[in-house]
This record gives sequence, C-alpha cells and structure tokens, in this order.
Amino acid sequence: MSKKPTNGVTTPKGFRAAGGTCGIKASGNPDLTLIVADVLCSAAGVFTTNKMKSEPVQVDLLHLKSGKARAIICNSGNANASTGKPGYDNAVEMCRLTAQAIGCETKQVLVSSTGIIGRPLPMDKIGRGIATLASKLDRGSASDAAAARGIMTTDLVPKTSYAQLKLDGKTIHLAGICKGSGMIAPNMATMLAFITTDAAIAPAVLKKALQKAAIGSFNRISVDQHTSPSDSVIMLASGLAGNKTIPAAGKAFDQFVEALTGLCADMAYQIVKDGEGATKVFRVRVTGAKNEKDADRVGRAVVDSPLVKTAVHGGDPNWGRITTAAGYSGASVVAEKMSLFIGHQKDVCVFEKGIPTTLTKVQTRKLVKLMQQKEIVFTLELGQGKADVEWLGCDLSRQYIAINADYTT
Amino acid sequence: MSKKPTNGVTTPKGFRAAGGTCGIKASGNPDLTLIVADVLCSAAGVFTTNKMKSEPVQVDLLHLKSGKARAIICNSGNANASTGKPGYDNAVEMCRLTAQAIGCETKQVLVSSTGIIGRPLPMDKIGRGIATLASKLDRGSASDAAAARGIMTTDLVPKTSYAQLKLDGKTIHLAGICKGSGMIAPNMATMLAFITTDAAIAPAVLKKALQKAAIGSFNRISVDQHTSPSDSVIMLASGLAGNKTIPAAGKAFDQFVEALTGLCADMAYQIVKDGEGATKVFRVRVTGAKNEKDADRVGRAVVDSPLVKTAVHGGDPNWGRITTAAGYSGASVVAEKMSLFIGHQKDVCVFEKGIPTTLTKVQTRKLVKLMQQKEIVFTLELGQGKADVEWLGCDLSRQYIAINADYTT
Repeated sequence: MSKKPTNGVTTPKGFRAAGGTCGIKASGNPDLTLIVADVLCSAAGVFTTNKMKSEPVQVDLLHLKSGKARAIICNSGNANASTGKPGYDNAVEMCRLTAQAIGCETKQVLVSSTGIIGRPLPMDKIGRGIATLASKLDRGSASDAAAARGIMTTDLVPKTSYAQLKLDGKTIHLAGICKGSGMIAPNMATMLAFITTDAAIAPAVLKKALQKAAIGSFNRISVDQHTSPSDSVIMLASGLAGNKTIPAAGKAFDQFVEALTGLCADMAYQIVKDGEGATKVFRVRVTGAKNEKDADRVGRAVVDSPLVKTAVHGGDPNWGRITTAAGYSGASVVAEKMSLFIGHQKDVCVFEKGIPTTLTKVQTRKLVKLMQQKEIVFTLELGQGKADVEWLGCDLSRQYIAINADYTT
Repeated sequence: MSKKPTNGVTTPKGFRAAGGTCGIKASGNPDLTLIVADVLCSAAGVFTTNKMKSEPVQVDLLHLKSGKARAIICNSGNANASTGKPGYDNAVEMCRLTAQAIGCETKQVLVSSTGIIGRPLPMDKIGRGIATLASKLDRGSASDAAAARGIMTTDLVPKTSYAQLKLDGKTIHLAGICKGSGMIAPNMATMLAFITTDAAIAPAVLKKALQKAAIGSFNRISVDQHTSPSDSVIMLASGLAGNKTIPAAGKAFDQFVEALTGLCADMAYQIVKDGEGATKVFRVRVTGAKNEKDADRVGRAVVDSPLVKTAVHGGDPNWGRITTAAGYSGASVVAEKMSLFIGHQKDVCVFEKGIPTTLTKVQTRKLVKLMQQKEIVFTLELGQGKADVEWLGCDLSRQYIAINADYTT
C-alpha cells in the first residue's frame, strides 16, 4: 500500500464531487458537500452507538438496507439532531432533492449533518445549495478539496486520505474525507468520514470490511469521550476498478481490509491531532490484556482521563494517573502484574510489576524529554493474557475550555 | 435532624483528635491528623472501587475484618499508593506507631494517606508526628479544626459536617471531616471522609448504614471521573450516647441512616463545590429511569461529560450535550420519551418528548439567568420506569488545567 495524500475522493473511478457555501453558517464558510457515483454502488456505513441517533443517521440506516447507493449529501453548521419528526422529514427531503438533481431514487442517497443541534435546518438554502452543487460536480483536486472543506465545522484543517492496492493485476483506489472533532457554535462534536473506492465488492462484504477497519481506527480514538449522535463512516464502492469481486474471506479480502484500515487509521489520527484545543497526541498501547474488550476498556479509560490528558499537556510524567485509570476501567488488572513504559521504543520503564522504578538521572532526563514531545507513547503491559490494542488521544488544554465554554449559542 | 456546622469530630462522646505538621509537605502546611476513641468502637469503611487500591486501603480492609477500631491516622502530602510491598509495610508501621502511642493493638488502627503517588513515605517524620499528635489529643473546636486541616491537599477550605438525632430519648451525635477533590504536587485526586458518632450500633449494622449513606452521597459525585486508589470513608461509633443498640432494620435504623446520609451528602456537596478549578456546581436529577443502575449511568455520564461541564462553566444552555450524554451512557433511553428541564423548580422545559421546545423571549431570558447561577439544576425525565437519582458535578475551567498540567512533579 502506498499513500499519495494529494489524491482525493474522486480519484477512485466513477466518482464526482462538489463542495460550497449555501448559507447555513453565519461565517459564510463552506457548508455543503455532495459526492456522487456514476453507477449504483455497493454502500455500507458504521454509525454512532449513541441511542439518541440523529435524524440523518436514522434515515441512512433505512436507506442502507438495500446495500446500494448513488450519492452522499452532507451539510455542516447544523446537525439536524434531536429535531424529532420534522427533522427526520428534512433529512429525507435532503435525499429527495439530491436524487432529483442527479437523477436517482431518494433511497439511493445517504445524508449527514453536523453542527448545532436542536435547530431546524434552513431547507430553502439547502435546496438551492444542492441544485448548485449538482451543477458543479466534477473530478480532480479542486472538487476533492471543496468536498473536504464543505463538511468542516471547527476543524482547523481539511482532512483527506488516500490508499491503493493491487488485486488481480488491477489497481484499487481508496480515498476518504473526514471531519472532527470540532464543535460548531459551539455544540456537538461529531466525526464524519466518507470513503470512496472503485473496488468491485458486494454490499455485505463491504460492510464487513468497513466494520473491521473502523474497529481498529475510528473506534479507538477519543477527544472528549462525548459520543456524538451523528458519528458516521459511510463508504461507496463503484466496482469500476475491474477486479474480480472481492469475496467475503481470503487473501483479497484481507488485503482490502488492510488498505482500508490504513486509510481509516490515517484519518483517525488526523481527527485526534486536530482535536479541539489539542497540542499533543498520545498513543496508549495496552498489551497482555485478558481479552480485547478488557484491552479496550483500559485504553479508553486512559485516553479519556482528564488527569492523564492534563499531564500530557503539561509534559508531566505523572504515571500514576495511567496505572490508576487502568484500575478503574473495569478491566481485570492487578498491580503486581502491571508494568508501564514511556516512549516509542518503551524507552523508560516507570512502573514494573507493581513497584515504581527508581530512575537514574539519565533516565529522568530522558523521561522529561519524552514527555515534552508532540507525540507520546505509553505502553501498559497488563500481564493478564494476549490481547493488544492501541488507542489514540489528545491533551486537554485551556483552548478546549475556551472553544466549549466561552462562546454562547 | 438539625445541623450545627460549628460542631466537629470530637463532639460525639468518646473522641479526641489532633492535627499538625510533621514535614511531609514542602509548603509546611499541616499534613497529619489523628482521631482517637476512648473505647473500642464499632468501625466500618467504604473504599475505592479502583482495582489498584492504595496500600493503606489494603491495610484497612484487613483491619476492618474485626469490625472494631480505636483510631484513625491520616497523612496528607504523600498517598503511599502504587508503592508495593514497602508501601504496605509503611502503612502497617503507621498503625503500629499510632497503637504504641495511644495504647492499643496495631490492627485496631485505621490508616489513610493522600497526596503524591509512587513515592516512599518519610517514615521518620511521620513517626515523630504521630508521637507529637498523640500528646496533643483533645476535644473541642481547636482540635476539630486542626484535624480537618491535617488531611487537606489542594483543598481551598477545610470541610466538616455535623448532624444529630434522637433515639430512645438520647441525643446521637454524628460528625465528619473530609477532603477532596484536590491533587497534590499535583497528583492523584482523592476523597477521604472520617466520621465519628456516639451511637450504640453493632459493626455489621454500622457497615450497612454507611454503605446506604455513601450510595446516596459520595457515590454520586464526580469532579473529574478519575476514581482514586485511595478513596475512603471510615466511620467509628463509640456507643457512648446511651441509646439502645440500633438494630439492623426498623425505625431507629432508618432514622440513623437518614441522619448519616444527610451528613454524607453535605460533605459530598462541599467536596464538589471545592472541586479543582470549580466555579459552579450542578445537580443532575434523573427521573423515570428503568432502574437505579440505569439512572446512575445517565447521571454519571452527564456530570462527567467535558462538554456539559464546559457548557455549565460558560453558562451556555447547550442542552443537547445533556440529552446526548444520556444517549451514550449505556442506559435504556429513547428520545420520544425524554424531556429536559432547567432550574430548581423545573423552570424551563427545553426538550419535551423528543422535540426541542420553542422558547418565548421571556423563557429565553429566564434560561440565560438560570445558567448564570452558581448552582444549576438539570432534570432529565426518561419515561422508562420509576427510578430517580441525583448526581452532583462541577464545571470545567481553565483553572483545572492550570492545577493539573502546569506544575510538574
């Protein structure tokens, strides 16, 4: 797998895109993105586990039942979440207007919204915006960039990722755009990712591949632990690459999942790095957990702990905050079997099987330097079993408070 | 039950106390507290659920097996947590030195430590400190105040509470001191509470009463979700009030639990109010949950959400942050049955059975005022069943970041 970050969502064969401003945001920033496939695609999605699912997510779950779709329409600036029946109807209307503009059925369109919650969508503006974008649909870097910008909220940078692989002598392209973890106005943090590929793959197999890729990427990041009602990863596969349809298991499937996981992991990293107020990223490698569920519990507890996040921010090697987060995570842990290392190469051991390490001056200096880096790695060995996972988190800074407390809606 | 906040831990009959400085803290602030009963007491404790229990907690769990104790020794400035076997031995040694000084058995002493973790205790200083405090043990307000100060870390104010009730024509006194949620150096947040009473009550019944009281108070507060390895609520009952021994059930037991719960709730409130960087307290009343576990899930998710905490800090009525926290809490919720009110008297309904309320200008002004208050009440009706709980949280401010990121250990 090689990466060419200049490639975008229209690089896979059969896709066009457009992005622009329809007037939802007071700032006048771009707020609408349309991705359209020339052919009916295999489609799959992974959505928020929040029980208060946004109205667009509810519509997508219904529209994805066929496993087929032609387009994704997404607005930013208004999440259309917690809006009840009127909001649901608006989400359907966005699909209908898109279908009308590009010539397909309403149920072949998927919809996402991100931004302020509990407010009605300005459907007149969105309607005009959809018509305009439909007339501008194109391939190439300008369209890719516009599509990536139209879904941004408080993101500081647009986020795109690209991967490719060879199957049956054919090049398969995968590309994605994503946004998060920004707030708008400021309101709900949301992560959205839209992925295109020209691989030939059946809907059910695509879904399986996307779920596998999401577990190892988007599902192991946290900026502020608040699962949005709108989180969506949506993927369209046009099948135009010319490969033999990827079967549900075997080498081709594994290679596809590997490339897709790499793409998702790259986007997940970009989201955490651009997390609100974030100045540092940290990785929590949990090894030797009893099982994957336990490993995830520990990883998540550590990346979500405000004490760990502030220690990372301050560059303070307060390692007790990490071991004790493992302690309250709900996972099976015992101090006597636990060890903690800091650094990409497990450079410094600070806690070894229940006992704090007595550090030499050289080790202490190394530790201070490691904690000052922009990316910090903690490796927590539990000694309980064989499950390993890696979680990604970011620090907690005054800027996070400023973004989320100082503005008022 | 009437409250006289000037009363302290030596008001219940049979207790003496002392507090002072033994030199653990570089600041020279008080760092040692000793509470001693004249008679062997019924004793009970409720401890952290963190699996990385501190060494003093491990010792207390052992010493409390008899249900009897004479004294509590507590140092601040060093948590003696994650210190392994040497730390365990030091915790036992603190009990032994106390026992020696006051004339009882080592296992009749309970021990707590709070402060920096992973560092060895300066046992020479603590040994001298224990001897000094033992010689200063006394009753009255000066001793009460010194005891409350000796357990403080970054607490801005000492915290005491008092309650009384009548049983069999006798006045039963209950008093407590507590600390939290401060860090030291800064390290682990810990809450400690020590409660004295002169009620006659068997150890098993005292334990049952204390557990009931803790559930409705200390177990429903959160400053920063990071459960400390040292959290301890320890209670001694001298039995000198002259009441008939309180049975395990019935009216006397209920009255005792009610008074004890009131005492604990008052201390819990003081802890949250003095939470690190806190400028506001908010109550989350969850009603109509399927069961108490679900109600607690929702309450905890709301008070722990950084988005809710920053909204409270900024006085922003971002109610979607509350409803969606309920959505990811794991509890059984559906938007169509959920309603949210803001204000002590459910003054403004912002979300009614799945639909955002259209507020009048008068309601909007009222909402803005309510959100600016120092104490805010959210009532979240789930419409799923009959379980009601109340959680207490505090806002998240820049000061929290300063306290926990800017100092280095």
